[in-house]
This record gives sequence, structure tokens and C-alpha cells, in this order.
Amino acid sequence: MARFMGVHDGFVGATKEQISAVHVADPAIEDEEGVHFEKAWLDPEAGKFFCLSTAPSKESVMRIHERTGHPTMEIYEIREEV
Amino acid sequence: MARFMGVHDGFVGATKEQISAVHVADPAIEDEEGVHFEKAWLDPEAGKFFCLSTAPSKESVMRIHERTGHPTMEIYEIREEV
Repeated sequence: MARFMGVHDGFVGATKEQISAVHVADPAIEDEEGVHFEKAWLDPEAGKFFCLSTAPSKESVMRIHERTGHPTMEIYEIREEV
Repeated sequence: MARFMGVHDGFVGATKEQISAVHVADPAIEDEEGVHFEKAWLDPEAGKFFCLSTAPSKESVMRIHERTGHPTMEIYEIREEV
């Protein structure tokens, strides 16, 4: 398993409820793709949304975002954490 | 105090030692600015470096990055976390 940081735009004015709904994706989809979302952070003014996840591959993270209606091309594989 | 996510570019091929040195800024500077770095994540292939901090203002985070030699304009104020 690897870790990924996804960066999403367009979440201007989003609420905690909305990001929770996005972040806690349908558990069935999480299971199918093997993706687990750990944590997410929102700047509703800039509309930036950061999602930290563990997953088997970058493609699996992209797929889960597509399937939950929030596609992004900005997924970074985290190799170091301090 | 508020929370911020800083996004840095140009860390291609950076090592854990290098990001630790950046992340654990000179404690005297941290104290002066009132900034505390909580956590940081690196994608050395894309050169992306994400820093989560608590600080009194966005400006204080920008200043500390400037003073430690890693200026960035990309600082997002985190209002929600899930």
C-alpha cells in the first residue's frame, strides 16, 4: 500500500457536511478499490480540498474520486512524512 | 490560532533529511512567529511538499517559509477537517 495526497479545486463555500460526504466515500467503493481515506482538510475560501489516503495505486485513488463525482488529476504519491 | 496547509514545488528528489531540516524550522524562528509545524508530506517525484501548521496568520506562515529559505505563495487556511 502507498499513501497519496489528492488536491481538489472548486470547493468554494463547501461545508463540513459536504466534505464529509465526499471524504467518507461509499464504503462499498472504498472496499472495491482498496482505498482508505485517512484525513482531509478544506479551505472553503480558496475552494481547496486536500485528501490524504492509503491505496494500492495512484489510479485507484483517481478512480474512486471519479466514481464519487469529484475527479482530479492532482494526486501525489507521498514517500516521506515528517 | 488558525491552521494552514502550505504547498511547495521544486522538491524533486528531496530526501527525508532535507525535508526534516526544512520542516523543523529553527525553533527560535518558530517561537518568534508563533508558528508550529504539525506534519509534512513529500512527493519527491513530482517535487511537491505539503506542510500542515498552526499559526496566528497566513502572513506568519509565509514569513517563516521565507526566513527558512523556502518561500511559497500557496498557503491555504484550513477551516474544516474530517
